[in-house]
Amino acid sequence: MKKFFSLGIAGLGNVGLATVKLIQNNSDLIEKKAGIPIKITAVSARKRSKSRKINIDIYDWENDALNLSERKDIDAVVELIGGEEGIANKLVMSSLKKGKHVITANKALLASHSLEINTILLNTSSGFYFEAAVAAAIPIINVINTGISSNQINYIKAILNGTCNYILSEMKESNSSFDDALKRAQKIGLAESDPAFDIEGIDACQKLSILGMLAYGTKPEIKNIYTEGIKNISNLDMIYAERLGYSIKLFCIANFENKMLDFRVHPALIQLGSIASHVNGALNAIFLTGNYSKKLTFIGEGAGPDPTASSVVSDIINAAKNRNNNQKILLENIAEYPYLSIKERSGPYYIRFLVDDVRGVLANITSCLNENNISLESIIQEGDNKGQSGVNIVIITHDTKEYCMDKAINIIRKMKTVLEEPKVIRVEDI
Amino acid sequence: MKKFFSLGIAGLGNVGLATVKLIQNNSDLIEKKAGIPIKITAVSARKRSKSRKINIDIYDWENDALNLSERKDIDAVVELIGGEEGIANKLVMSSLKKGKHVITANKALLASHSLEINTILLNTSSGFYFEAAVAAAIPIINVINTGISSNQINYIKAILNGTCNYILSEMKESNSSFDDALKRAQKIGLAESDPAFDIEGIDACQKLSILGMLAYGTKPEIKNIYTEGIKNISNLDMIYAERLGYSIKLFCIANFENKMLDFRVHPALIQLGSIASHVNGALNAIFLTGNYSKKLTFIGEGAGPDPTASSVVSDIINAAKNRNNNQKILLENIAEYPYLSIKERSGPYYIRFLVDDVRGVLANITSCLNENNISLESIIQEGDNKGQSGVNIVIITHDTKEYCMDKAINIIRKMKTVLEEPKVIRVEDI
Repeated sequence: MKKFFSLGIAGLGNVGLATVKLIQNNSDLIEKKAGIPIKITAVSARKRSKSRKINIDIYDWENDALNLSERKDIDAVVELIGGEEGIANKLVMSSLKKGKHVITANKALLASHSLEINTILLNTSSGFYFEAAVAAAIPIINVINTGISSNQINYIKAILNGTCNYILSEMKESNSSFDDALKRAQKIGLAESDPAFDIEGIDACQKLSILGMLAYGTKPEIKNIYTEGIKNISNLDMIYAERLGYSIKLFCIANFENKMLDFRVHPALIQLGSIASHVNGALNAIFLTGNYSKKLTFIGEGAGPDPTASSVVSDIINAAKNRNNNQKILLENIAEYPYLSIKERSGPYYIRFLVDDVRGVLANITSCLNENNISLESIIQEGDNKGQSGVNIVIITHDTKEYCMDKAINIIRKMKTVLEEPKVIRVEDI
Repeated sequence: MKKFFSLGIAGLGNVGLATVKLIQNNSDLIEKKAGIPIKITAVSARKRSKSRKINIDIYDWENDALNLSERKDIDAVVELIGGEEGIANKLVMSSLKKGKHVITANKALLASHSLEINTILLNTSSGFYFEAAVAAAIPIINVINTGISSNQINYIKAILNGTCNYILSEMKESNSSFDDALKRAQKIGLAESDPAFDIEGIDACQKLSILGMLAYGTKPEIKNIYTEGIKNISNLDMIYAERLGYSIKLFCIANFENKMLDFRVHPALIQLGSIASHVNGALNAIFLTGNYSKKLTFIGEGAGPDPTASSVVSDIINAAKNRNNNQKILLENIAEYPYLSIKERSGPYYIRFLVDDVRGVLANITSCLNENNISLESIIQEGDNKGQSGVNIVIITHDTKEYCMDKAINIIRKMKTVLEEPKVIRVEDI
């Protein structure tokens, strides 16, 4: 019988190094939990000679990560390179085909190639683990697949991008502009120099597609998920939202009703006083309801090397424990359901118009809304706009369909008295 | 090869019936998740003929639950009788010894007989599952054992008794007395007619001992866990706490530092604005930190038939999936660490004194606190006590040791000007 569980680790960026460090530091505990010692046998990264805080010379080095999938002395390949194509993709696929267990944190790969991985898994004895791909330290994959597996999940609502949540929290707390808050996020390493992937909601969308796949057994289809980032959220909207009893979050929704998938990522006003409104900084949160569990809430670090390594190594322990017992954590049967169009979204809206301070403006706007079956729950109109030209009219509507809202806004934006593009933000229950 | 995974269910109270209902209602989903159909073969309860909302005549009946452990046609025994001794105990032990998988929601049994169960598990091929024993629908056992298994857990702080949390929330929201809030809890079925087990903190203490066992690998020792219930919390304390920026919860702490266990259950003031202060009604919450995961928060229904059945049936699915792969979810090595005495607790305190409104009282009290090295962070003294005799002096201290507090209170309670037993509540960080 083999004396240890042998790893090949590909990718020695921040997460890769934190993974190595965690395996070194918690080794006694890891052995106790896994029931077998876990040893790193070989590593691979772009450059061998780079200066690193951790000594990697004690491990075999592979210039070509793909060699890890070939080595007979490796039980499991840990893929921490990232990216949906390229070497990460090849390494995962070939390792699985060769019967290696695979542990990955690669959300892009899962969001785009889950069907392919699924097909391979059906014909191999490999185990496949990806806890770290969504919400870093929060073990939400494990919760959905195992902890609450007896439930039909009714909905998932989530805050899945730590960068956006940090920026929005910062805008609110420090009364900053979006640009300033973004700069601060970049300064502390929470946002990339090209922040598009985070602030446009793509990262959150990939993660949501994975949760949706696990919750509803549906094929992930990024292109069908309505995705809107946070670039248009202004500090002024934060302030008005708060006055109206709301805070603004980048919200992810995966709802399954009447055999339709309602998946979307967009900024949303959520009630102050809700637990979600207290999820600040770089935290992630997932709120879901099962038909028996009822509502469950999970909050934790959604990014960062250590929290991500926490899930990577917990997966490694799981892989070692189940090494002789194939774990199929992808889907046995992938279902394809239609996606609800964002136009069919029904709910309240926050709208802000910057208008000329002349008689009749408010009447024109409200009658246009009324003609499109949109009724108002609350309204703020203020005379003084601190020396700026125009005044703001801020409205929270009652429930309405998005296509009605679109129609009304299309008319209102063309009014001469409306000075800038109207701001529309969905209001969501949580 | 066997065509289904066969269950014997013992105990058909609310949780037992919800379990049967869930297995019936979500059967397709359960089969998909388990990879094998799950069938109830036999049931047992005190009375066969009792009127029940669910037809149990389609299952074999056993008058003696112990027969379930004998039957060759049963793979797993689901024990939902409860109680640390008696038939539940016998059934679990004998089922395990006979190689049956066991699923249980029995916290009392686990809190008192884990070592015995552990010994049996080391010599059997049975799997053992008890997700439902703590915090009902929150899959916290699975999270600690699997989801974050790579971490050394630094502390667990939790709200583990839904009844107490409901009573305290109700006192605050409806401005009710403890007795009135308790009566309301009894009326809606959240508290027993003899509520001692909940309101004295015993239920929370049992659950905490189980979480502590899993987190730190220590033998559960109920008798070493300082346990104080909520009977002495008055509405007046709620009001003063809120004015000082706190809410009051029955708080459970399992801390492991310097190889000492600091386990306790008692009411605590926690900061308004913290997520914990928003955990209201019958909800449970667990806050824990791992050395890599950092802080994680889990919130959900901590009681009730459906949420409990959610965990029972998720365990059943897990047992079925792992039916050929023995799951040891108790401890391989049980460690015994010393427990920190409550006298050594260090932190701030809330104290309220009802005193005669005469000159010098405040000076006497504060100088006594000062002599015992207790310094004050904030203080409220109010002249008018709404027609009641005496006035209240309310103090939040800086960090101090509990033995200093005890010494000071022992002196102050004997002062002639102090009209009732001083109220002391610990203030906890979260």
